[in-house]
Amino acid sequence: MDANRDTFETRLKNNAHEIEALLDALLSPSILSDEIARPERLRDAMHYAVLNGGKRLRPFLVVESAALLGGNAEAALRVGAALECVHCYSLVHDDLPAMDDDDLRRGKPTVHIKFDEATAILAGDSLLTYAFDIVAAPETALPDTSKASLVLALARAAGLGGMAGGQALDLAAEKQAPDEAGIIRLQAMKTGALIRFACEAGAIISASAPEDRRRLRAFGEKIGLAFQLADDILDLTSDTETMGKATGKDAARGKGTLVALRGMEWAERQLHQHVRDAEALLTPYGARASTLTAAAHFIADRKS
Amino acid sequence: MDANRDTFETRLKNNAHEIEALLDALLSPSILSDEIARPERLRDAMHYAVLNGGKRLRPFLVVESAALLGGNAEAALRVGAALECVHCYSLVHDDLPAMDDDDLRRGKPTVHIKFDEATAILAGDSLLTYAFDIVAAPETALPDTSKASLVLALARAAGLGGMAGGQALDLAAEKQAPDEAGIIRLQAMKTGALIRFACEAGAIISASAPEDRRRLRAFGEKIGLAFQLADDILDLTSDTETMGKATGKDAARGKGTLVALRGMEWAERQLHQHVRDAEALLTPYGARASTLTAAAHFIADRKS
Repeated sequence: MDANRDTFETRLKNNAHEIEALLDALLSPSILSDEIARPERLRDAMHYAVLNGGKRLRPFLVVESAALLGGNAEAALRVGAALECVHCYSLVHDDLPAMDDDDLRRGKPTVHIKFDEATAILAGDSLLTYAFDIVAAPETALPDTSKASLVLALARAAGLGGMAGGQALDLAAEKQAPDEAGIIRLQAMKTGALIRFACEAGAIISASAPEDRRRLRAFGEKIGLAFQLADDILDLTSDTETMGKATGKDAARGKGTLVALRGMEWAERQLHQHVRDAEALLTPYGARASTLTAAAHFIADRKS
Repeated sequence: MDANRDTFETRLKNNAHEIEALLDALLSPSILSDEIARPERLRDAMHYAVLNGGKRLRPFLVVESAALLGGNAEAALRVGAALECVHCYSLVHDDLPAMDDDDLRRGKPTVHIKFDEATAILAGDSLLTYAFDIVAAPETALPDTSKASLVLALARAAGLGGMAGGQALDLAAEKQAPDEAGIIRLQAMKTGALIRFACEAGAIISASAPEDRRRLRAFGEKIGLAFQLADDILDLTSDTETMGKATGKDAARGKGTLVALRGMEWAERQLHQHVRDAEALLTPYGARASTLTAAAHFIADRKS
């Protein structure tokens, strides 16, 4: 198990290096065809927002899901980079004074502190826009059918009926605590949708059979639930130094979490049930799915 | 000429009604496949932001460019609606306190005044995201090759190297006035890129020959220049009531415009030169291009 974990963490780290090298190149000063200019300060802010020391879990899931189903590895890396742009845009906007008002993200000043608020808004906007550029660009070596499917799935995961809608529900939850069904819906949208997309994207990139796509999508849903539960547990048990961001905030704001509602023991049990459900979904793929299975365990067991 | 103008304005109005009916339907409470829920307040804010009484000039250009080149009219309307979502998202974010800080837009409270700042940020984010959803959705009856091209062209027009980058340059211009080349670049990005895309989109929708695409793109560039010059002239000569927004603001903020730099007489002359250049680009299409030609004149002669 420890050896497996070492192997897994090495893979995760290596993939993070590849993603970061790609993001760095994608955000270089050089102008792409059809661009008029790349304003330096805005580009700097996008670069800062994206190269922020994240674990790159979402791109890793894209790459490993595609690897499982025989998809083009280079294209998967580009789709992973696009997804990371969406994830990072959401962090920049969520941190804004009008939203969660956070000064610190992974131990570093947030974008509106490091730059300014207007630049942070525009950097988020531009990262979101760039994600669709990266997916559709000729350098992403996929059939146009796959590109159109990826654009649609990513937009649905990120928009009104996904991540952005989840953030809206989260803000509303500060005023009126949602019930259990409400919390589950909120979390499925705010954090679940992008993680689900990450796994489903691997199947789209691989032009897999609908059954594989459904299976990967369901796997993504389960690890998304695990991710959020683990986050809620960490928010109560970890400290600011380990997390690189303020902890205990959700509880302090009176935001309902499933942990608060059902207790720590239930949450721990539920967390491991999600991991077992996720594992079960990948049984048909046998040992080839070992990295994705390890990812499910990593998500549940992580300490930050 | 007056009869022509009447016909043109009737066409513009009829198209605006069609676009508005479509946008209203696209932002209905009903949930699309792959969406988890549509938070009501966020959906309301998106609806308010989009159904704001605009002239719908950009969607009109998409529809008329596609009509000129024989593209699918229904698909063109959907792409026009997507483009209008991008345009309206940019207005919502530009109006934010951290950006231009405007309380009034077309005589009505801006989104952050009517709702709140967090909702305005998320409504903008969600409209931008939804634009790509609309283009890629199965209901847009176009080949996937056209969809991938549209997504790429729209992302380039809207992002770092287009509209969002132009807004960043515009904010920087308040601190240090750009020179003539800088103003031209800023305007080509901030307002020009989406108008250029509108015309080019017609050619993509019609799967036209590269020569037609280049011609429509160049036409879009010329009327984009005309649009911005007309705007700068109106900012100096019109009043708040006619424009439905504060006027004289650019001048008051010391923002350089070509009118300020070169004078009103030069600007009027230049404006009509752009219209003539735009008209000349459409000569090969003969009388079939009369609506687009009328659009160029309308852009130059409009009073609000």
